[in-house]
Amino acid sequence: MKALLFDVFGTVVDWRTSIAREVSEICGPGVDSYRFADRWRSLYQPAMEQVRSGGRPFTRLDVLHLESLRTVLSEFEIDLDADATTALNFAWHRLEPWPDSVPGLTRLRTEFVVAPLSNGNISLLLDMAKNAGLPWDAILGAEPVQAYKPMPDAYLRTADILGLRPDECMMVAAHNSDLAAAAECGFATAFVARPLEHGPTQTFDLAPEAEWTYSVDSIVSLADRLNC
Amino acid sequence: MKALLFDVFGTVVDWRTSIAREVSEICGPGVDSYRFADRWRSLYQPAMEQVRSGGRPFTRLDVLHLESLRTVLSEFEIDLDADATTALNFAWHRLEPWPDSVPGLTRLRTEFVVAPLSNGNISLLLDMAKNAGLPWDAILGAEPVQAYKPMPDAYLRTADILGLRPDECMMVAAHNSDLAAAAECGFATAFVARPLEHGPTQTFDLAPEAEWTYSVDSIVSLADRLNC
Repeated sequence: MKALLFDVFGTVVDWRTSIAREVSEICGPGVDSYRFADRWRSLYQPAMEQVRSGGRPFTRLDVLHLESLRTVLSEFEIDLDADATTALNFAWHRLEPWPDSVPGLTRLRTEFVVAPLSNGNISLLLDMAKNAGLPWDAILGAEPVQAYKPMPDAYLRTADILGLRPDECMMVAAHNSDLAAAAECGFATAFVARPLEHGPTQTFDLAPEAEWTYSVDSIVSLADRLNC
Repeated sequence: MKALLFDVFGTVVDWRTSIAREVSEICGPGVDSYRFADRWRSLYQPAMEQVRSGGRPFTRLDVLHLESLRTVLSEFEIDLDADATTALNFAWHRLEPWPDSVPGLTRLRTEFVVAPLSNGNISLLLDMAKNAGLPWDAILGAEPVQAYKPMPDAYLRTADILGLRPDECMMVAAHNSDLAAAAECGFATAFVARPLEHGPTQTFDLAPEAEWTYSVDSIVSLADRLNC
């Protein structure tokens, strides 16, 4: 194993709390900010599906997020000007990490290449890393390979960029579906339980649903398991 | 100014000394290792020109380096097996930085995005950074944008990936031609004098040849000028 490739939204950062806080700050206390965050996130997979299906050329996530945000603002009958809408869209560049993420990545980085393999675009992931102190070795993911997870190209082209065989790469994610797609490509897999990603009533991805290579409750635990 | 984008070979790392040392180690003391290094490097621009001219699809630098290495080994009548040839080709992944590079980049990183904008491929730059402790925020350059410098796309697509206007980016290089191409694209420019890049008899790129935004003698001096 030479490279650990991380899902980011949910696995490394707590998108729901971060987005809800910025929605509250920008849209005011009258808005149900968690419901807003959940609705915005619910448009994420359909937006990428337009690209995955071939119906649309590769479009970076900032653009998809902005289109989805306009939809949600309309549904919530919130009137934001263009500057405030852009500012809110950049909330995804400022997501806060889970408490174990920075210490865990810092330890893992001593022994492995650590990089995001996220559907976030490069500048989103770079701004997030600067803001949160995430010690990535490189910013990888959908944009460099022009393919959204869970398409095989997202995993296989990332291994190829790294000059590694798939079995020298491990996908680390809080989502069983991401790990299943990575495993299909020959990656090793690590499940990190994030039972609060979707809030206190989360009903899925609470536990590993297959025999992943590792299954842990934090990135620090993964560093323990890998003797870093 | 938000991002400082660095040429790497010659500007951040001393490719000539590093390559000559590995040539000497792998090929033995009977080889003129500096002449070997210079000849290998002399095939760099012609190899990329095949891609820039459209005669060949984008091909990462590791592949071009390997083809050039086979040519040089043949010219020097050195018989290396495939494994040793591959090992020598990876010398480019292990280049040593100039003494001011790590301290200078570490200071600049506190105020700016710092990333390579090199013709090196991602895994080459990533391995080099891990080995030398170069604190890049992201690994950018020819491979993510599929265009070799000095083509305008190499600069313009990099700014686009960063979500920045060209005038929010500064190219930092020891080569006047790289800075000229970046300036044509609207980048700010910083010349770092590296008068020993090509050894003690270097005759070109000894001084700035235009009114670059900054002109310094080290990356630490650039950090001083930018108040980092």
